[in-house]
Amino acid sequence: MNHPSIIRPGEHAAYSEQKMGKSTIFQSPRLLVGLNAFEPGQEHALHAHAGQDKVYQVIEGEGVFLLEGRELAMKAGDLLVAPEGIAHGVRNTGAHRLLVLAILAPAPHQ
Amino acid sequence: MNHPSIIRPGEHAAYSEQKMGKSTIFQSPRLLVGLNAFEPGQEHALHAHAGQDKVYQVIEGEGVFLLEGRELAMKAGDLLVAPEGIAHGVRNTGAHRLLVLAILAPAPHQ
Repeated sequence: MNHPSIIRPGEHAAYSEQKMGKSTIFQSPRLLVGLNAFEPGQEHALHAHAGQDKVYQVIEGEGVFLLEGRELAMKAGDLLVAPEGIAHGVRNTGAHRLLVLAILAPAPHQ
Repeated sequence: MNHPSIIRPGEHAAYSEQKMGKSTIFQSPRLLVGLNAFEPGQEHALHAHAGQDKVYQVIEGEGVFLLEGRELAMKAGDLLVAPEGIAHGVRNTGAHRLLVLAILAPAPHQ
């Protein structure tokens, strides 16, 4: 959790054959910076966070992002903001791995 | 400030000949997602935020990032976290534009 130097997000990816893999890059009470790693066909079902804003950024691959019932095709470099209370999710509908930076503010209670 | 769809950060860059350009992609009390745009030679001097964590990500170009007296050469895709109270800054020492995503949690008081 202590990163006093350059972070290359791809080096922190944690893919799993069972389900979307999660890893944490940085966490404080104010902020969680993590990665969601999707093998082809994996998804993170639609959900919402009360009192927390989320920012997604595609690091690698392509996927469909859900935002309040809409489906948005996103690729590397694209950002999406899900403000508090707004339902969101991710589906890796492609043939390759999908790596997503997920930033949550404030961080979940530990 | 309302972005219910895909955000391509480069489209929100605000370069200025005078000094580092700033733009805001999203802001709530919990989170500020913005861009710092540096022409060659421009910099953001070393500074710190009490009670706020910052995440930098290079979107385009290359630059030298300062973190507690260290100088880190960063390029597109690299992340850096400056936890609250830790001095940080940016210098565009290169020949091309440098665009940096800057996320601050919580957001500054408006």
